[in-house]
Amino acid sequence: MIVVMRRGAPEAQRLAVEERVRGAGLLPHPIVGTERSVVAVVGDERVVEPEYFEVLAGVEKVLRVLAPYKLASREGRPEKSAVEVAGVPVGAEAVVLMAGPCTVEDRSQLIETAHAVKEAGARLLRGGAFKPRTNPYSFQGLAEEGLALLAEAREATGLAVVTEVLSEHDVDLVAKYADMLQIGTRNMQNFLLLRAVGAQKKPVLLKRGMSASLDEWLLAAEYILSCGNERVVLCERGIRTFEDHVRNTLPLVSVPALRERTHLPVVVDPSHGTGHASLVPAASLAAVAVGADGLLVEVAPDPASAVTDGAQTLSLRQFAELAASLRPVAAAVARSI
Amino acid sequence: MIVVMRRGAPEAQRLAVEERVRGAGLLPHPIVGTERSVVAVVGDERVVEPEYFEVLAGVEKVLRVLAPYKLASREGRPEKSAVEVAGVPVGAEAVVLMAGPCTVEDRSQLIETAHAVKEAGARLLRGGAFKPRTNPYSFQGLAEEGLALLAEAREATGLAVVTEVLSEHDVDLVAKYADMLQIGTRNMQNFLLLRAVGAQKKPVLLKRGMSASLDEWLLAAEYILSCGNERVVLCERGIRTFEDHVRNTLPLVSVPALRERTHLPVVVDPSHGTGHASLVPAASLAAVAVGADGLLVEVAPDPASAVTDGAQTLSLRQFAELAASLRPVAAAVARSI
Amino acid sequence: MIVVMRRGAPEAQRLAVEERVRGAGLLPHPIVGTERSVVAVVGDERVVEPEYFEVLAGVEKVLRVLAPYKLASREGRPEKSAVEVAGVPVGAEAVVLMAGPCTVEDRSQLIETAHAVKEAGARLLRGGAFKPRTNPYSFQGLAEEGLALLAEAREATGLAVVTEVLSEHDVDLVAKYADMLQIGTRNMQNFLLLRAVGAQKKPVLLKRGMSASLDEWLLAAEYILSCGNERVVLCERGIRTFEDHVRNTLPLVSVPALRERTHLPVVVDPSHGTGHASLVPAASLAAVAVGADGLLVEVAPDPASAVTDGAQTLSLRQFAELAASLRPVAAAVARSI
Amino acid sequence: MIVVMRRGAPEAQRLAVEERVRGAGLLPHPIVGTERSVVAVVGDERVVEPEYFEVLAGVEKVLRVLAPYKLASREGRPEKSAVEVAGVPVGAEAVVLMAGPCTVEDRSQLIETAHAVKEAGARLLRGGAFKPRTNPYSFQGLAEEGLALLAEAREATGLAVVTEVLSEHDVDLVAKYADMLQIGTRNMQNFLLLRAVGAQKKPVLLKRGMSASLDEWLLAAEYILSCGNERVVLCERGIRTFEDHVRNTLPLVSVPALRERTHLPVVVDPSHGTGHASLVPAASLAAVAVGADGLLVEVAPDPASAVTDGAQTLSLRQFAELAASLRPVAAAVARSI
Repeated sequence: MIVVMRRGAPEAQRLAVEERVRGAGLLPHPIVGTERSVVAVVGDERVVEPEYFEVLAGVEKVLRVLAPYKLASREGRPEKSAVEVAGVPVGAEAVVLMAGPCTVEDRSQLIETAHAVKEAGARLLRGGAFKPRTNPYSFQGLAEEGLALLAEAREATGLAVVTEVLSEHDVDLVAKYADMLQIGTRNMQNFLLLRAVGAQKKPVLLKRGMSASLDEWLLAAEYILSCGNERVVLCERGIRTFEDHVRNTLPLVSVPALRERTHLPVVVDPSHGTGHASLVPAASLAAVAVGADGLLVEVAPDPASAVTDGAQTLSLRQFAELAASLRPVAAAVARSI
Repeated sequence: MIVVMRRGAPEAQRLAVEERVRGAGLLPHPIVGTERSVVAVVGDERVVEPEYFEVLAGVEKVLRVLAPYKLASREGRPEKSAVEVAGVPVGAEAVVLMAGPCTVEDRSQLIETAHAVKEAGARLLRGGAFKPRTNPYSFQGLAEEGLALLAEAREATGLAVVTEVLSEHDVDLVAKYADMLQIGTRNMQNFLLLRAVGAQKKPVLLKRGMSASLDEWLLAAEYILSCGNERVVLCERGIRTFEDHVRNTLPLVSVPALRERTHLPVVVDPSHGTGHASLVPAASLAAVAVGADGLLVEVAPDPASAVTDGAQTLSLRQFAELAASLRPVAAAVARSI
Repeated sequence: MIVVMRRGAPEAQRLAVEERVRGAGLLPHPIVGTERSVVAVVGDERVVEPEYFEVLAGVEKVLRVLAPYKLASREGRPEKSAVEVAGVPVGAEAVVLMAGPCTVEDRSQLIETAHAVKEAGARLLRGGAFKPRTNPYSFQGLAEEGLALLAEAREATGLAVVTEVLSEHDVDLVAKYADMLQIGTRNMQNFLLLRAVGAQKKPVLLKRGMSASLDEWLLAAEYILSCGNERVVLCERGIRTFEDHVRNTLPLVSVPALRERTHLPVVVDPSHGTGHASLVPAASLAAVAVGADGLLVEVAPDPASAVTDGAQTLSLRQFAELAASLRPVAAAVARSI
Repeated sequence: MIVVMRRGAPEAQRLAVEERVRGAGLLPHPIVGTERSVVAVVGDERVVEPEYFEVLAGVEKVLRVLAPYKLASREGRPEKSAVEVAGVPVGAEAVVLMAGPCTVEDRSQLIETAHAVKEAGARLLRGGAFKPRTNPYSFQGLAEEGLALLAEAREATGLAVVTEVLSEHDVDLVAKYADMLQIGTRNMQNFLLLRAVGAQKKPVLLKRGMSASLDEWLLAAEYILSCGNERVVLCERGIRTFEDHVRNTLPLVSVPALRERTHLPVVVDPSHGTGHASLVPAASLAAVAVGADGLLVEVAPDPASAVTDGAQTLSLRQFAELAASLRPVAAAVARSI
C-alpha cells in the first residue's frame, strides 16, 4: 500500500502513519516529495484495509499495490486450473457447453431438452429449480421436484447437472441432486451462501454480480476457496450499464483480463449477457474466440411458451446450429468443443 | 402493455399475438399503422411479463404501460405512509436521525455513541452485529453478542434499534433484539430474505441495491408488503457508476422521484452515499432539502480506530454539529428534526 | 408513439393530446383502459419528439415505437452496405485491418510502421495528426506536417489513409491528404463537424461516443447521411462503465445489435476498447468472431517510446502475429482477412 | 507517481524504470518489497503521463499521486474564487439564479421570460441561440438572430446573458452579444473550443461532460485557464448511468467534492439534471443546501409549446415559487439568493 499525505501535512502526521503501519506488523517506508510525502508499506498489505490508514489525520488517499485476494490469484498458482464436474474438466482444452432451460417446468420439457443438447455436443445440463424472481407475483420454480427431474435427466443422458442454490440452508439439498452448484448474480456477495458452498465438496459456478468489479468477484471466489472448496468456475454474464438495447452489457474482455489475474476457469453466459435469442449466436462465437472455457446457454423445446426468459432462449434446432458453428472457431483458437 | 410488431410482419403473426393476449385474460386492441402495427393490451398487464409476448414471431418489442408493483404504488394509496418504529414515526413531519457505529465493537463504544447521538437529536440507534464483508479475511461482526449490546444500549437511552439481518434464518433472532430490520444493499434481491422479513411484524429498512432501478427496488418492497408486512422504509444509499472520487454516486433526486411512485417513506444514507466523512455533512443537508424522511449516519467515538468504514464515519462532535446544522434546513422545507 | 395518460386523467386532457397529434399531421388512436388510457399515434412519428406530448397536462410518459433515424436504418435498406475507401471495400466479405501509430511522430516511425502493417495484411494506415488530448500540457500532434507524412506513407506502400479531423474548419485540409476522415469519440455529437464531413465526399469513420446509446450513435450517422455523404463506417471503441481494470468496456454485442438496426458497416477498435496491449489480441479475435467488418489497431515500432497510448500499442511483430492468428477465425465465420 | 513492478520482475527492469524517471527530470526512489518492488517518483509528476512508465517491461501498473491539473487546483489557490459576470459575482455569498428558455424562439417569449425571472430574483438570463440537437431533423436555433434578441432582453431588464457557443469559429460572434459563454456537455472535451474561449475575455460556464470524471472536467477547465482566461464557472448537469427514470443522474455530492479540489465556483443545472419539471424544485433545494454557487434553470411562459426541452421547463409562476422556496434554504446554509 502507498499512503499519500496531504500537501503540507506536518511531519507528526506522517510519523503517526508510520507508527500505525508498524502496529499492523508491516514496515513503513517514508518518501518526502517536493509537493507532498508518501509512506510506502512494505509487507503483506492484505492484512489491513486501505481505510485503516485513510482515517488518520493528514492522509489524502491510500493506493493498493497488491490484489486483495490470495488463493484465487495467479501469483501463487501460475498454471490454469481445470475444475472437474462429474468427470468433465472445465478449464482444459475442450470448451464445455452447458445448456438447458432457464426453468425446469416438467419432465417432458427437460428430458427432451437434455437429449437434444447432448446430441448437439453439450456436456452439462443446466436448469433452474429455485428461481430468483424480481417480481413477487412470478413463478418461483419447482424446488425439490425440479431437482429430482434434473437427476432423472442425468440418468437418462449421462449429462452432468448444474443448478442454482439460493440459500445456505438449501445447499445440502441441492448438492444431493446436482453435480455443480450455481451461485447467481444477485447472490455473488451473499457471504453466508458463499461460505456454505465452500464448506461442501461439489464444484461451484460463481456468476459475476451485475455491478461487481473483477476484484470483488475474485474476493467472492476467495470466500469459497478459503473454506476449503478449490473447485470454483467463474461465469461472466454481463454487467449493468447505460446500454438499453440489451439486457446486460457483455464485457467479453473480462475473460483474458481474468486470465491475467487468476488460475480459475471462466465460462460465459451469452443468454443473460444479451437478453435476445437473436444475439446469442454471435455472442457465443465471440466468447469462444476470446478464450472462454465454456458457455452456459438457455435452450428449450419451445421458447415461446417458456415460463421464464423465453426471449433469450434458443430452440433445440438453434442450439444444434450454434454448436456446429462454434466448432471451427474453437479449432481456430486451438480448442475443441 | 404495447406489443410492437416488426415492419412487414404478416397479419397472421399479429393475430397470434392477439390470441395470446386473450389467453392471458386480457383484451387485445390492434392498431394498424403506416410503418408497422401495434397491439395494445387492455387490462391489468401485471399478470404477465413482457417476455410472454416478446417471444412470439414478428414481435419487435413490448413496452410496459403500468408499473409492475401494486401494494407499493402510490396509485392505490395516494397519501404518504408513516411507518412506526418503536413509537417513532418515519415518514411524518419530523426528519428522523438514525445514527451509530458501522459495526458494534464493544459495550463502551456503543453506549457512549448511543448517549451522544441521542443528545444530538437521533431517535434510532444503528449498528451492525452481522457484517457483510467483501473480503473473507475481514472481521465479520459480533453476531448475537452485538445484538445484546444493542438491546442494552436501547435500555440505557430509550433509542430504538435498527440493525442488519443477513439470512432468512437469522430473522427471528434479530427481531428478538431489534426494533427495525435492515436489508442491506447486497441483499435487496435476496428474495428468501425478503419473504422472511415480510412474514414477521417488525418494520423493515430496505436499502437500494447498488445497481437497482427504482422499479426493481419497489418490486423488492412489494415482496415484503405482499407477505403481509406493511411497514417498509426505503433507504437510498447510492449507486455504482463510473465516478471514482466517491464510494457510490448518491442520486438524491430519487427521493422526489420515489415520492411520485410510492407511498413508502424514504431515508438517505450519506455515509455509504459518499464514502468520505468530509462529504457527509453537505450530503446530509441536501438530503433533508430534497425531502428525505430520515438520515442513516455512521458515527463513532473514534473513527480512526473503527474496525470498519472509519473513513466515512463522523465523530460524536461532528455528528452533533451536523444535527445542529440540519435544523434550519429542515425548517426551511417545513420539516423538523 | 404511444402517449400514456396518468391514472384518472380527465377525458378533456386525453382529447387535448389527440388534438395535438392531429396538429402534427398524425392520426390519434385512443384506447381507454381499465387503469388508464393511452393514445397511439399513427403515422411517421419521427416528425415530432416525445417531449412534444410529454409536456401536456395529464400525460405520464411517451413511448417511441419507431427508431428515430431513417437513412441509417436497415428498414429502408435491408442489405448491408459496403463502403469503399480508396478501392478497399469495408463491409464486404473481407475483414479490413486498419493499423498504425496512435500519433504520427516522424517519417521513419510512420514509414516503417506502414510497410510492416501492410506486409502483415493491413489495407488501411491509421495515424493521428491532430490529437485530442485530455491534458492541456500534453503533445497535440504534428498537424499538417503529420498529414503530409501520412500521404507520403501512402505513396510508399499503397495503403489507404484514415486520420482524425477535430474541427469543421479542418475538414478540407484533412480531406486533401486522407482517404477516410475519422470522427473521434469526443466529437460524435459535434454536430457542426458531422455536417461538415457530410458535405464532402470522402468516407467517414464514426467512432461511438463513450457514453452514447446505439440510437444516439445512429442519429449521429444520420447527420452525415442526411448531408449527402453515404459512405459512413461505424467504429465501436468501448463505453464508459464502472469497470476499472480496462480503459473502456468493449461491448462487442453491439456489432450484431447494429446489424439488426442498420445497413452501415461496423469496425471495432480493440486498442481503446481495452487500453492494454496484452488484451488486444483476444479482443481482436472476438471482434472478428462477432462479425466486425474491420479492426482499427494501434501499432508502432517501439510502443515503449510512443508519445501517446503506448500501453495499448502493439509492436510490429505483435501485430504480424495477431494478423496471422485472425485468419483462421475469420475463415471459421466465413470471412477472410 | 508510484510505479508498481510485477512480482518477480528482474532487477534490470526496475533499473530501466529508474533510468526513465531520471530521463524525465524526476527522482526515482526504489522500494524493494516482500512480494514486489515499487519505484516512487519524486518531483512534479505532471510532466509525464502514467503510460510513459506503464509501457516498460516488468511494470504492472502506475498510480498517480498528484492531481493532473494545476491552475484549477485548490492547492495553489486555497481560497474560493468568485467569477464576475457583468457585475454579478458567481462564487460569492449570494447564490446566483440563471434562468430562461432552453431555446430562444421569438422576441415576445424571451422578453416576457426575462422580465419574469428578473422579478423572481434571477441575475442572469439563459437562452440558446445555437442548439446542439441529437436528431438532425430537429430545429437548430435562431443563431445570430437569437443572440440579438438576448442582447435586447439584457437592455430591457439589466440581466446579464449566458448562452452556448458550439464552435471555436463562433466565439467572437457569441462574445459580441453575451456576457458569459457556455460550453455544453457534448463539447466539454472539444479542445479547440476550450482554447478559443480561453483566449478571449468573457467568463465561461463549463458544463460537465455526461460521462466525465472530476479529473477530466478539471482538466477541461485547465485548458481554458492555461490560455489566460481565469474566469471559469463549473456547471454540474448530471451524468449518464443505468437509471432510466431521469434524463441524467444528478450527483450533487460533486459540489462539495469539487470544493475540496478546486477554487472555481460550481453551479447546478437541475433541469438537465432531472429531465422532469416536477423534479426540478426538489433538486434545486438540494443543490442550494449542498453548497452550489448558482442554479441554471429552464423557464418559459408556456412550457407545453416550447420547441425544445418542454418537459423539463418551469412556467414563469413555477419559477417564482421555486425562487421563493429557495430563500429560506439559502439562509439556512448562510447564503442568500
